[in-house]
Amino acid sequence: MKLSKEQHNNFNKNGYLFFPNLFSQEEIQYLVAAVPELYKRREEYNYREKGSDAVRTNFAAHLYSKPFAKLARHPRMIKPVEELLGEKLYMHQFKINGKMAFEGDIWQWHQDYGTWVNDDLMPTERAMNVAIFLDEVNEFNGPLLFIPGSHKKGVIKAKHDLTTTSYPLWTLDNDLITQLVNRAGGKNGGIISPKGPAGSVIIFHGCLVHASSNNLSPFNRTSVYLSLCTVSNHIRRFKRKAYIAHRDFTPIECLPDDCLIKEYDVNLPWSKGVPASALQTSLKELSD
Amino acid sequence: MKLSKEQHNNFNKNGYLFFPNLFSQEEIQYLVAAVPELYKRREEYNYREKGSDAVRTNFAAHLYSKPFAKLARHPRMIKPVEELLGEKLYMHQFKINGKMAFEGDIWQWHQDYGTWVNDDLMPTERAMNVAIFLDEVNEFNGPLLFIPGSHKKGVIKAKHDLTTTSYPLWTLDNDLITQLVNRAGGKNGGIISPKGPAGSVIIFHGCLVHASSNNLSPFNRTSVYLSLCTVSNHIRRFKRKAYIAHRDFTPIECLPDDCLIKEYDVNLPWSKGVPASALQTSLKELSD
Repeated sequence: MKLSKEQHNNFNKNGYLFFPNLFSQEEIQYLVAAVPELYKRREEYNYREKGSDAVRTNFAAHLYSKPFAKLARHPRMIKPVEELLGEKLYMHQFKINGKMAFEGDIWQWHQDYGTWVNDDLMPTERAMNVAIFLDEVNEFNGPLLFIPGSHKKGVIKAKHDLTTTSYPLWTLDNDLITQLVNRAGGKNGGIISPKGPAGSVIIFHGCLVHASSNNLSPFNRTSVYLSLCTVSNHIRRFKRKAYIAHRDFTPIECLPDDCLIKEYDVNLPWSKGVPASALQTSLKELSD
Repeated sequence: MKLSKEQHNNFNKNGYLFFPNLFSQEEIQYLVAAVPELYKRREEYNYREKGSDAVRTNFAAHLYSKPFAKLARHPRMIKPVEELLGEKLYMHQFKINGKMAFEGDIWQWHQDYGTWVNDDLMPTERAMNVAIFLDEVNEFNGPLLFIPGSHKKGVIKAKHDLTTTSYPLWTLDNDLITQLVNRAGGKNGGIISPKGPAGSVIIFHGCLVHASSNNLSPFNRTSVYLSLCTVSNHIRRFKRKAYIAHRDFTPIECLPDDCLIKEYDVNLPWSKGVPASALQTSLKELSD
């Protein structure tokens, strides 16, 4: 898989690329089947929705679940991001977001890089998100909303919102969102939301402004999010626990393309539990 | 305006009819221009969103605002509902729902008739809603969601939800919503949401199950809702204040079709304020 010139241009202009049906239903089923057991676990890495038992975010499954360990090294996502950033990558964050039927709460307007720089001291925006749909995403189950081109704004001043949902987030000001949406076309294209079958994938820039509404529908909208950072751009502070912001900067080596349907050995370092060191945090800035 | 046989069939099957662009932009502008002053008023009839100053619902503007007094007697809405219900109508409820940019909160899954029967002792479901879009409704600003055909289920057991939003509502159980959506086609048509330009109108059955998501977009989604009840089916209890559930059962007499663009005299009984009697409530059941 090599991106076309048009895809490079689109990415530079809009800040995202959408790949409908990048994974087959067989590949996705292998992943989907592993989620309920992970969500049942009473572990710190499962954040639940405010006032509900539904899982909002499961962190770091690639370190303790075989299907997701394989997904985390899948060439169909790692290779295009390597190509866009021109460097080897490490896994900064890995999550399975529930956005469960009836229970899934909003994600306010934000840039992911806002959190990475504010909390983790990630030096530059040379990092990228990949979203993999484990369920069909439609207009009713809280699709991701993007403001095309908003990544060009760079890092935007943000406010740490600790109350709206169960998960703290660096969120953006309404006036600025209005400006960005108007600049991108207002009601004609100022917001877009890629929708499609399970197995579809979005790659998006760490500075792309995005949000998602709550899920009032009876349709789950579970997605996996990989946050991939170039190795030289690794974080400089361990303020957040290691299951949220990883501290292993080893370059990702891809598995073969058929890794989700064939047997491959993968390392599961946290299969016996999260190590105590991963729960330690520090406000100290690392030297390079 | 006379409904076609096909429209009657569609209404019976799906529980709603959608009329894109039923009002011109000139007519809508006349209404839109009157909203900010109404929303600014520090009056009991303005319900604000939980934790916000944005108006969620303004009640009874047809009794104190000339543009809305005219709209409440507009033949383009009153006549089709009279035709569907075969009887003269009175205004049971009149509201201007804000669903303001960034601030508009959800409306949980509910049937309006659930509230009308539980709170107001409205004898039967011979009543109907009309929604008039004062802003464009798109996929991003919290459009109404309907479960087609759910009106055929009749009145469904509901729970009085006093906490989720700032407005108490008789809401429905998630398992039942799932069943109704699946019966209506699941991901293929089990939920629909009419979208269109300002001036579009939806007529929907009092038992049609509906909801709407929050509005994360910078686009207001203000709509007027008329709840029209057949005169013989008037409510039998004044448990709710009269600006929420009206007590004047006089049949509505329509104005001419051009009433929003020409000068007509209308009566504004609450122009000097809401009368004290309208704030009195009672749990007593009226005799017929």
